[in-house]
Amino acid sequence: MEFSLIERIRSLTEQSRDDVRLGIGDDAAVLAVPAGQELAVAIDTLVEGVHFPRGTSAVDIGWKALAVNLSDLAAMGATPAWALLALTLPEPDQAFVEGLAEGFAQLAKPHRLALVGGDTTRGPLSISVAVHGFVAPGKALLRSGAKVGDAVLVTGTLGDGAAGLHTLANASHYPVHPERSAAESKGNVDSDYRSDARDVLIARLNRPTPQLAAGLALRDLAHACIDVSDGLIADLGHICTASGVGAEIDASLLPLSPSLIAMYDDASAQQFALTGGDDYELCFTVPMNRLADVQSDLSRLGCGVTRIGRIVEGQGVNVRGVDGHWLETAQAGWNHFA
Amino acid sequence: MEFSLIERIRSLTEQSRDDVRLGIGDDAAVLAVPAGQELAVAIDTLVEGVHFPRGTSAVDIGWKALAVNLSDLAAMGATPAWALLALTLPEPDQAFVEGLAEGFAQLAKPHRLALVGGDTTRGPLSISVAVHGFVAPGKALLRSGAKVGDAVLVTGTLGDGAAGLHTLANASHYPVHPERSAAESKGNVDSDYRSDARDVLIARLNRPTPQLAAGLALRDLAHACIDVSDGLIADLGHICTASGVGAEIDASLLPLSPSLIAMYDDASAQQFALTGGDDYELCFTVPMNRLADVQSDLSRLGCGVTRIGRIVEGQGVNVRGVDGHWLETAQAGWNHFA
Repeated sequence: MEFSLIERIRSLTEQSRDDVRLGIGDDAAVLAVPAGQELAVAIDTLVEGVHFPRGTSAVDIGWKALAVNLSDLAAMGATPAWALLALTLPEPDQAFVEGLAEGFAQLAKPHRLALVGGDTTRGPLSISVAVHGFVAPGKALLRSGAKVGDAVLVTGTLGDGAAGLHTLANASHYPVHPERSAAESKGNVDSDYRSDARDVLIARLNRPTPQLAAGLALRDLAHACIDVSDGLIADLGHICTASGVGAEIDASLLPLSPSLIAMYDDASAQQFALTGGDDYELCFTVPMNRLADVQSDLSRLGCGVTRIGRIVEGQGVNVRGVDGHWLETAQAGWNHFA
Repeated sequence: MEFSLIERIRSLTEQSRDDVRLGIGDDAAVLAVPAGQELAVAIDTLVEGVHFPRGTSAVDIGWKALAVNLSDLAAMGATPAWALLALTLPEPDQAFVEGLAEGFAQLAKPHRLALVGGDTTRGPLSISVAVHGFVAPGKALLRSGAKVGDAVLVTGTLGDGAAGLHTLANASHYPVHPERSAAESKGNVDSDYRSDARDVLIARLNRPTPQLAAGLALRDLAHACIDVSDGLIADLGHICTASGVGAEIDASLLPLSPSLIAMYDDASAQQFALTGGDDYELCFTVPMNRLADVQSDLSRLGCGVTRIGRIVEGQGVNVRGVDGHWLETAQAGWNHFA
């Protein structure tokens, strides 16, 4: 079993990398870090029923297990190189393993990431991936570099992943936009649109795209960077803590996707964008005089970017609501033990 | 929760290593491999009820999760440097986390291993550790180098881990040595001895010692090496497959511990030694003209070593029983899905 899964992924992800001196099949892989590069290393686990809903397809699980880890490398401005994968499965299941390998490979291949080792064990479904990337000495993007006066920006749109999860779990119980709800009950074409929007949100949950190119582009521009995995307030809060600063953001500036707006009322959409996990966008700070460079460099990559606030003296994240009043933000995002 | 566990282990394992440019607390660690060294990397997961019995202490789990991984580095002849740890726990449990950190640190510290990252999630109890070690280019011990005519050797004693597991699970149902059983029923002092032996076997199961010093000593002596985690026949079989050779071993030469002999009859002890998992000794092959060097180098380290057979043409592992006849060895050790 161990060999069939790991071998299957290896064959699907086959990469001829000179830096892999010895790949899968011995007690350990032997790897060579290129001269003048340091290694960025992270590990993350996905557990069924916690990080992905029961019933998530094996292909999506394989993709997401790698994506959440590559997102950590993106947040460091690192270039992906190698991964290890540890899978725990209740019983041997060839179709599941094929799907998992397929999803992992779909994301690994374009990034030339080589799977160099793994382990397969019996038990409740979960998957841990450890990733390794390269970064030039002193060039890693840290959480700790934010400066008072910096602008706070995010890539892409926020809240979609959490909304996707919510959509899957409680579709029938949640406030949808009242006009749309009325239109839909009349058999309006709008219901097709909502079905598409629902699919988009679920895809954002199950197949997040790590912002690797953006991370690389930000290496000489951003003062601080993190990926939004636990929710914007929580993750920007980590930047504030590490940097010894505070942040102010404007709820009216939050980038929301058309799909999120189609499916949820304004208050719900804002809540997902502020506190929902699973976005895997980058949140970063840049000095004001580099804003134009960031905008042009990221838009050249086709990566949307939005300025949502600024770094201030003090601590913690404060959010100004659309009505201009400060919101209560004690609620600090995803809790691993919630 | 994530931070309290990982921080706790970090504080217990604190190592001032120049090669850790950025440790725990950002999206990834940043590490520098020393010039002239390559990286040996492995990952292994322990799942409750599969790799350790329910009821195993947190301290033992923390130790073993690192030990099984360091054993992979030992088998490569690598020097440990860094680890990542991903823990899945049913619920926050500070005492458990303290124990786990303590056990991990007890083994990490003497090897100057630094914990550089981790992840804590909610779910059924399991723990994945990824380890990183250094090895000079071209010097790693592989499974694939065994040559016809090599001697086959093992460090330490075999079968204790599997016997420990068996002892825990079925103590009252298993054939013990008949004389001892009789003595015990007479209230003989021998029962103290058996109680000690039982503790030794359980300790071998729960607190295996990775043979790191032996692995280093073997780098210029052994043709092939593996750690015995799945059982001697299975693991020596991996050497045979990777090297395109066969192996013959003599059951009468298997190194058995006094504790194993005290607790089990000869047939059971032999079975544990041939097919039991969880030994974490090294099995390796050396050319006959280096046997004396191996014996003296390992005994200088205080590491027992026993010649148990030889590499032959052909394939697979054949075992000559104590009566001189060949045994059936279809039964190839630990199966992850058994």
